[in-house]
Amino acid sequence: MNDSLEDRVRAVEDKLAIFHLIASHPPAADTGTDRYYRDAFAADGEMDLGGGKGARGNATIGALVKTPEHQAAIAGGLCHFAGLPRVEVDGDSAVAISYLQIITPDRQAAPREVPGHGSTTGFRIHRVGANRWELRRGKDGWKVVRQSRNPALPGKVGEVIMAAR
Amino acid sequence: MNDSLEDRVRAVEDKLAIFHLIASHPPAADTGTDRYYRDAFAADGEMDLGGGKGARGNATIGALVKTPEHQAAIAGGLCHFAGLPRVEVDGDSAVAISYLQIITPDRQAAPREVPGHGSTTGFRIHRVGANRWELRRGKDGWKVVRQSRNPALPGKVGEVIMAAR
Amino acid sequence: MNDSLEDRVRAVEDKLAIFHLIASHPPAADTGTDRYYRDAFAADGEMDLGGGKGARGNATIGALVKTPEHQAAIAGGLCHFAGLPRVEVDGDSAVAISYLQIITPDRQAAPREVPGHGSTTGFRIHRVGANRWELRRGKDGWKVVRQSRNPALPGKVGEVIMAAR
Repeated sequence: MNDSLEDRVRAVEDKLAIFHLIASHPPAADTGTDRYYRDAFAADGEMDLGGGKGARGNATIGALVKTPEHQAAIAGGLCHFAGLPRVEVDGDSAVAISYLQIITPDRQAAPREVPGHGSTTGFRIHRVGANRWELRRGKDGWKVVRQSRNPALPGKVGEVIMAAR
Repeated sequence: MNDSLEDRVRAVEDKLAIFHLIASHPPAADTGTDRYYRDAFAADGEMDLGGGKGARGNATIGALVKTPEHQAAIAGGLCHFAGLPRVEVDGDSAVAISYLQIITPDRQAAPREVPGHGSTTGFRIHRVGANRWELRRGKDGWKVVRQSRNPALPGKVGEVIMAAR
Repeated sequence: MNDSLEDRVRAVEDKLAIFHLIASHPPAADTGTDRYYRDAFAADGEMDLGGGKGARGNATIGALVKTPEHQAAIAGGLCHFAGLPRVEVDGDSAVAISYLQIITPDRQAAPREVPGHGSTTGFRIHRVGANRWELRRGKDGWKVVRQSRNPALPGKVGEVIMAAR
């Protein structure tokens, strides 16, 4: 290790800053907090939702969680669940792969009981897949330049991961 | 950055200490290890399970996993699954938002096979939602002062997250 | 704290290096990247899959994701989902407990729509449980010496966790 102690501390801080940015996504999505997206994305940042769908610009991306559709999803019980991300920092750029589940209450199943844990009709994984985040460090810290997501459908998870290399 | 290198290292250690505390919860819950709760919670720490249910005091909270109900849940196959937490430290206080799934074997479904991954009847998400942890640093390190959890039911996830701000 | 600042930085780097190794597993498993296993495991590292099944040697372990069975699972939509790990480092050895879900598309369910989040037939948790990783630091960094996994079946999760103590 030839890096200075300060460089090493900064490398650790960078990783944790990107963890924080990814960990802050589910609470923002599940509460419709557009400010998160405006802060986390670069002004010209992109969100690629696949199939030609997406949005460009941090304000436009933030506005997505204020749409009636997203608000209806929240009202129905919406839960974004983020796994442990893989983050690789290279100077002022970084690429992260994170897995994400979108979970909703299962309203069609019969209730079941787990001892000491109450009775529920359970929850349903509506989507799961890998997200790729491209980030850049600027004067205001790390910002998302591009986020792509691919569902766990045949060949899809790999697409976004392979592109991350 | 005007913080000293030592302050910056301490900030990183604080984050990872709280990650560790949250990551240690599922193994303790799934094995009925009351010692975890006694160590992790402050002597007068509170667990708010929602709906007016909860417990106060680290010994009382720890005792919950020794009840016949919890032991029966473990015997039936119990899996707590923690996502990536969002941790904000402010001096000697911290607030963390972590998502948690409670998963059990699905005993009613027909077995299905995944090539190279055997045949199972699958697993069922019994509960999922956001936990809010309020922590305080004392002479024995970080301790949980209050834990609240809200299931991913309409409006519930947001309740606990909004309260964390 | 009597450790030098450099020791403290190294302790933090160690934790994050092991996080990275665990976070890199799902992308490798879901894309059939054998190189990950060759790099992550020690030359004589072991993978204990339970029930007397397993593999020894980093090349042999890596080859598992190149088998027709694993490739068929990927082609069918395969998603490994890792939770927040609990990592304990002791000098040049470490033990980690991480939870892992193996998720596949549910092809038998009827499609359901979530407002603003499209329509899917949902996903199914095929396996979930706790993994125990034993690691050792060598001249090439942290390597997995032994990985054991236990599904969330009655008594099974606890087996691997208890053994980690």
